[in-house]
Amino acid sequence: MTPQRIGVVGLGLIGGSLACRLHDAGCEVLAWNHTTRPYAGAEARGIRCLPTIEALAAAQPDLLVLCNPLKAMPETLAALAGVLDERTTLTDVGSVKGMVRDQVEAAGLGERYIGAHPMAGNERSGWSAADPALYDDALWAVTVRGDSDYRRFLSVAGMITGLCGNRMIVVDDRTHDRAAALISHMPHVVATALVNELVTDPERDIATALAAGSWRDMTRVALTDPDRTRAMVEEDDANVSRLLRDVSSRLLAVADALDGAGRDAALARFFAEGDPFRTFKTAQTDILAHAPERIVELPEHGWQTALTDLARRGEHIVRFDTPRTVVVRELSHIG
Amino acid sequence: MTPQRIGVVGLGLIGGSLACRLHDAGCEVLAWNHTTRPYAGAEARGIRCLPTIEALAAAQPDLLVLCNPLKAMPETLAALAGVLDERTTLTDVGSVKGMVRDQVEAAGLGERYIGAHPMAGNERSGWSAADPALYDDALWAVTVRGDSDYRRFLSVAGMITGLCGNRMIVVDDRTHDRAAALISHMPHVVATALVNELVTDPERDIATALAAGSWRDMTRVALTDPDRTRAMVEEDDANVSRLLRDVSSRLLAVADALDGAGRDAALARFFAEGDPFRTFKTAQTDILAHAPERIVELPEHGWQTALTDLARRGEHIVRFDTPRTVVVRELSHIG
Repeated sequence: MTPQRIGVVGLGLIGGSLACRLHDAGCEVLAWNHTTRPYAGAEARGIRCLPTIEALAAAQPDLLVLCNPLKAMPETLAALAGVLDERTTLTDVGSVKGMVRDQVEAAGLGERYIGAHPMAGNERSGWSAADPALYDDALWAVTVRGDSDYRRFLSVAGMITGLCGNRMIVVDDRTHDRAAALISHMPHVVATALVNELVTDPERDIATALAAGSWRDMTRVALTDPDRTRAMVEEDDANVSRLLRDVSSRLLAVADALDGAGRDAALARFFAEGDPFRTFKTAQTDILAHAPERIVELPEHGWQTALTDLARRGEHIVRFDTPRTVVVRELSHIG
Repeated sequence: MTPQRIGVVGLGLIGGSLACRLHDAGCEVLAWNHTTRPYAGAEARGIRCLPTIEALAAAQPDLLVLCNPLKAMPETLAALAGVLDERTTLTDVGSVKGMVRDQVEAAGLGERYIGAHPMAGNERSGWSAADPALYDDALWAVTVRGDSDYRRFLSVAGMITGLCGNRMIVVDDRTHDRAAALISHMPHVVATALVNELVTDPERDIATALAAGSWRDMTRVALTDPDRTRAMVEEDDANVSRLLRDVSSRLLAVADALDGAGRDAALARFFAEGDPFRTFKTAQTDILAHAPERIVELPEHGWQTALTDLARRGEHIVRFDTPRTVVVRELSHIG
């Protein structure tokens, strides 16, 4: 099930780091990048760089991982559509999954595709920032449909749990995109709104003088390239919009409580509502150290929903013992 | 101008760390705490611990720094009202300043009072967490009124710039409380709202699995004691409420843009609005290393507004060369 030869499209922060990690795990890694700038460094790192994306496809990798920016996805898929070998499984690392699957299907490559999204990254970019340690302890979301091919799924899972040594959960595209909006895309907008609030304040120099740890942490993601953030938000617009309205209502409810009657009860409720998450975070180090492994046999039919049910209970896949036997640990269950 | 003998009320994280730092700077430090639990450790650290707050007042320190929780302030001030020596200057470290000054005045101690707020802290609490390094590179806000006494102001400024080796800005209470709401109190509510959004999501275990750096940073302050956060928010309620309504409007505007027409222009504006802050942050390390010193002579009358004008231009006081000569550096001016 573990792929032996993997092609990587795009040697930026995410793709470059992945290519290095896969090479370090003993895998044969081929790559193509839209400019040859990273090629000397990548070749020195043991990665075989090819002159065209068609040449990469012609090398018939077991798995081809698209690590290009999402805005280049239609062009990348158009280039691959006619030339990708039937045996090559296609996956990607994009931060939204529904849109990518639509594009893959439009390119006629839907049957070979399994979605993936590694929860790894930082504020840097490009090959010069590539570092296999970026994937240390990473969790990947793998997205499937009801008709996804199990052999192709195993190839992607083998890369993640076998070669990368990472954990994974399996969900459908919609669930992924909702969850990613909640823990990343929407918070990026909130951080940006905080920065805008400061910049437009007449006493912004005084506020900046007073800014300490809480401000720094809450606005860090607003300091990254705002165009990249904007693209990420636009690609998941419906989920982000709904969540912004929810958060906006929560903030207004606190403002109303601070201004008006019923203040004690409303504020007590607001400040207690997140307690299950606080309790989980307090215990998380212990959970990571001690959560036992559990073995789950997967059915031949309905394996997709069986795996998504595991994710819904906060159970992460840590490895496959056999092609139908997954080993899971309950690592993100909020009591 | 530098105080020789300083009393500290409350040996928690902030007060305990300050007491240690002042002792390490060669100052005589006396302390009282509402329980004697920290006394053995504090005495071993060279801090003279007194059995009652009245005994602390009777020791006639040049400066008495109130580091008790804000909710204990009325009781603390009532205990001091009858016994505090006229020569002792009173200050505090509370995160809101208007309310504390009102309480100090109600206790009849207004003429001896200069407000202060060190921008230092972490998620821990109590004497066991005390560490003089908490104040490394800290900036303090010092709050004055039009009739504040200059000699008393110099005593507090001497503790900050001389003994602690810290920077300071001088503002009025209202400006302080507005700025603190912007960079700390309101963001704490926003972080709490994000956690509540996750906890109430039906897919919260999946979202928690995917949560990585951006979520961790944006919700860190929501993991601290929510009762402490609630108290901080309630003490600055009018400013927090106004800012929550502003941020809420900003989030709704983005949601409307994502859902509707005029999307490109609105999103472009939203993601560009904070650019002056991004530019400042990119340059900040350079600014800290290279911003030149500038000498400012203070007038005998109107020194309060002269100092607040410096703060409004992002100029921080780094030391006093003479009692009327401050040395400033422009460290928080957003272009």
